[in-house]
Amino acid sequence: MSDQPLMLGAVLYEGFELLDLFGPLEMFTALPPDMLQAVLIAESKGPVRAGSMADSPMPSSVADYGFDDAPDLDVILVPGGVGTIAELENQKTLNFLRDRAGRAQITSSVCSGSALLAKAGLLDGHRATSNKMFFNLAVMQSDRVDWIETARWVDDGDVVTSSGVSAGIDMSLAIIARLFGQETAETIARGAEYTWHRDADVDPFAQYLNDGSV
Amino acid sequence: MSDQPLMLGAVLYEGFELLDLFGPLEMFTALPPDMLQAVLIAESKGPVRAGSMADSPMPSSVADYGFDDAPDLDVILVPGGVGTIAELENQKTLNFLRDRAGRAQITSSVCSGSALLAKAGLLDGHRATSNKMFFNLAVMQSDRVDWIETARWVDDGDVVTSSGVSAGIDMSLAIIARLFGQETAETIARGAEYTWHRDADVDPFAQYLNDGSV
Repeated sequence: MSDQPLMLGAVLYEGFELLDLFGPLEMFTALPPDMLQAVLIAESKGPVRAGSMADSPMPSSVADYGFDDAPDLDVILVPGGVGTIAELENQKTLNFLRDRAGRAQITSSVCSGSALLAKAGLLDGHRATSNKMFFNLAVMQSDRVDWIETARWVDDGDVVTSSGVSAGIDMSLAIIARLFGQETAETIARGAEYTWHRDADVDPFAQYLNDGSV
Repeated sequence: MSDQPLMLGAVLYEGFELLDLFGPLEMFTALPPDMLQAVLIAESKGPVRAGSMADSPMPSSVADYGFDDAPDLDVILVPGGVGTIAELENQKTLNFLRDRAGRAQITSSVCSGSALLAKAGLLDGHRATSNKMFFNLAVMQSDRVDWIETARWVDDGDVVTSSGVSAGIDMSLAIIARLFGQETAETIARGAEYTWHRDADVDPFAQYLNDGSV
């Protein structure tokens, strides 16, 4: 482990899913700041509005950094959400992800965030997963990915992708366990009174594959 | 059910716990806006910084309304967090909660949020719970509450309180089930790929009561 804390950057965009972002962030920010620090990054710094499948009015969270002044990142977290579809056409986001993933230790996604990673080419040659209801959205972005349909999350080394929404919490604890040890992850889960699904291969929602179609 | 959507107000303050707020909000905002709408409220509108037990740098989320211009509320949600202790001395917050809870259908809290409700006198004569690690913080605020140590959440009619952090997600689904039916709650949990702990009386973390002391 290096002397410097790891820097985690969560990449936001309009229409991100609240729990995709804040579930993992809850766990990562339970680490002491001399081990890991987390920042929110968007194309431009400032408020970014979340999205909802139900088209409800949604709150905004504040990006601390824009793409142009984001710090060096060791861990990247890309949430999904209804905004993913529009973001697939945003070359600035795809370029930022390509640029930063090449220098990061772990690039991770929650839910449809893996569609963005796939579109950026970052999952080519890798095993990866996505949310159940709209699995095909991710699959459509690249046929060079070994898409795993039944998985709570898939850890393929420098890319780690999770299934839908809540699965991101389980994935984030697994990343914490890999980086800082199992006991650290267990302590964080217990502090948050979270029943951690520890087995990446057990997927309680596999039966709902493409239930929402694309 | 009335013709108007229910209005849910989440009451933020500096140092709120991310998942206390955004876990329940993920579930509530999966309801169509003609059934329920959710807004963030703070003493003053604008960015409110979250808190972390680990004292990590934390992101801000934007309060849509201040106490002075908040809409009428049918459901109130009070998150906990490291900021709770300072907020217990904020009379404006306690007064806002007293005023609005008297006119709301359900006043709910997550984690140490129940300490604020207790300090405001809103739990007197009620059954209620709080997070496990710092349970005594809530208990210290009122001896007129029937504090339930072993509970994932406690539904006592117009006040519903949950145990720590993640338990708020389970509570929010129970509130949705009460207001809109079990099938609606089940559909929302499935869409978020969330394994809902459906039994309020089963508390996997009861053994850690006051592990963090006060």
